[in-house]
Amino acid sequence: MKIVVDIGACDDPSEVTRGSALALQDDKSLELVLCGNKDELNKTLSLYNLDENRLQIVDAKDVITNLDVPTVAIRHKTESSLVKAFDVLKNDDVVGLISAGNTGAVLSGGVLRLGRIKGIHRPALAPILPTVNGKEVCLIDSGANVDCRPEFLVEFALMGVSYMKAVFGLENPKVGLVSNGVEDKKGNELVKETALRLKELPINFVGNMEARDALSGNYDVLVCDGFVGNVLLKSIEGTASMVIKTLKSAIMSDGLSKFGALFMKKAFSTVKSSMNYQNKGGAPLLGVEKIIVKAHGASNSDAIKVAINQVKKMHEGNLIANIKNGLSSLTANENN
Amino acid sequence: MKIVVDIGACDDPSEVTRGSALALQDDKSLELVLCGNKDELNKTLSLYNLDENRLQIVDAKDVITNLDVPTVAIRHKTESSLVKAFDVLKNDDVVGLISAGNTGAVLSGGVLRLGRIKGIHRPALAPILPTVNGKEVCLIDSGANVDCRPEFLVEFALMGVSYMKAVFGLENPKVGLVSNGVEDKKGNELVKETALRLKELPINFVGNMEARDALSGNYDVLVCDGFVGNVLLKSIEGTASMVIKTLKSAIMSDGLSKFGALFMKKAFSTVKSSMNYQNKGGAPLLGVEKIIVKAHGASNSDAIKVAINQVKKMHEGNLIANIKNGLSSLTANENN
Repeated sequence: MKIVVDIGACDDPSEVTRGSALALQDDKSLELVLCGNKDELNKTLSLYNLDENRLQIVDAKDVITNLDVPTVAIRHKTESSLVKAFDVLKNDDVVGLISAGNTGAVLSGGVLRLGRIKGIHRPALAPILPTVNGKEVCLIDSGANVDCRPEFLVEFALMGVSYMKAVFGLENPKVGLVSNGVEDKKGNELVKETALRLKELPINFVGNMEARDALSGNYDVLVCDGFVGNVLLKSIEGTASMVIKTLKSAIMSDGLSKFGALFMKKAFSTVKSSMNYQNKGGAPLLGVEKIIVKAHGASNSDAIKVAINQVKKMHEGNLIANIKNGLSSLTANENN
Repeated sequence: MKIVVDIGACDDPSEVTRGSALALQDDKSLELVLCGNKDELNKTLSLYNLDENRLQIVDAKDVITNLDVPTVAIRHKTESSLVKAFDVLKNDDVVGLISAGNTGAVLSGGVLRLGRIKGIHRPALAPILPTVNGKEVCLIDSGANVDCRPEFLVEFALMGVSYMKAVFGLENPKVGLVSNGVEDKKGNELVKETALRLKELPINFVGNMEARDALSGNYDVLVCDGFVGNVLLKSIEGTASMVIKTLKSAIMSDGLSKFGALFMKKAFSTVKSSMNYQNKGGAPLLGVEKIIVKAHGASNSDAIKVAINQVKKMHEGNLIANIKNGLSSLTANENN
């Protein structure tokens, strides 16, 4: 299985390289194409004992940074690592792309250089979040589309369902529509119209859900527009970090608590690890013709390794075919 | 100072009564009018030694529940405790109203039975949240208006600023616009248009902010539409509760951690108390002609006491006059 990795502008590109090297060492069925500055790549890769038959480097002298305008950069920065990675992705034997770079450019590349799946108006970002009961929940859209129409959200729901079936093996994923209350009458205009349409589809739509239950484990797919999804995702991050900071400072300001904390290393590390969504890989961009995973800009080598494994699981689960299949219920519905 | 309290439908009306009694005992300058079932009120109040000159009971045989349609109930349930409370609020000597009942009915009552401040299109809910550095931040709107136009958000910003000045004594509150990124180009259409308008006003508008920084203490007022505000508020609640649950179960599953936790009671209680936003009172409904505070439906007597004190502080800070004054910059701007 061949995957292309963009080693472009992110917090630490060498971590992306290292993660790729570790993945190659671990998984003998894996082939990687790395796009980036050849000299720097070779410097990092020389530290690993790698099977050169499964590794290809595409030299790219340019990068797309967060300062670039995504649509402009993806059209014109043809020497950038990301555009070169999209070129590689076009080859039949390459199943997916990973980038820790400019999110907007990854989205634009997905649409402009790869192409949308027929029937999808807007591809969406669909990260997996940890829940209180250890299950995963997919949030779609977490930020690709800030202004949405009901048909976009309906497509997000169908893609989220296909994703949870294909990759996590769920039989009938429970879909909740993010709203300001669980009652049918709740929601803004977008949510109310979307709810009516979701009820017509052959999916397990359980209705409106409240943001306080996002991590409850009671839902498998959370559907919302990308603006709301971004607020939800980031407030989860911010609050988790605030609670932990508050606890740390409370411990440090009380001698007895400080003593007690010495015995609690294991519990703290369990919490830290269950809150660390880098463990869950990156955010797949669903709705394009191949697998694309946007890794966090601050990804370390472990997170990249997880993201590579995630692409593999998505491919093995026939994700793209499943999404196309899931959309057929929509067409059937429209034809009625 | 006279305040009216609706003892209607909430999780435990007797807690609202008890909170009112405690407030009366503590503050000799306070007068309360309690609207609710007279017999039940008297049963609870008889347990306290109260100055009857400062306490008035308005008997109400009916209640507005969460099953009622707010606008219909507030017009037609004239024997309900909430409608009677709004009648009391009309008296010149009554400065504010507190209710732990149906949020929509409190909003409708504010508009239909009390009246909006001239220049305000839509009153908004503005709860105070705790932050990581111990400062308060005001979130406006947290759920009153799910579909908004830019002019509503501009008014929310001005009201939030007046509130933080009047009640918390801030000189120049920092206003952030909730968005999907801090850069100017981020935001949905509503946010982009609102940002342009906020820049024109004589307030300390610092631009877009991300939900992950909501509790950072870097902002004094967070502005957003009521749908987004509701998602933000509830995901903060849900995540804080998830982190704490995860920590608890991690502690229980490790003997050493369980031992350590015995010494950490103080630290845990500090965290619990700093996360407990009942300490911060209820959510004021800003933009109506008098002070209205919507307390949480699950309020205990302490939370009600805090809410009563909050009304007092809002009145002493001349909140309504300050809001009216804050709106003048908008009119000045429109006249230019």
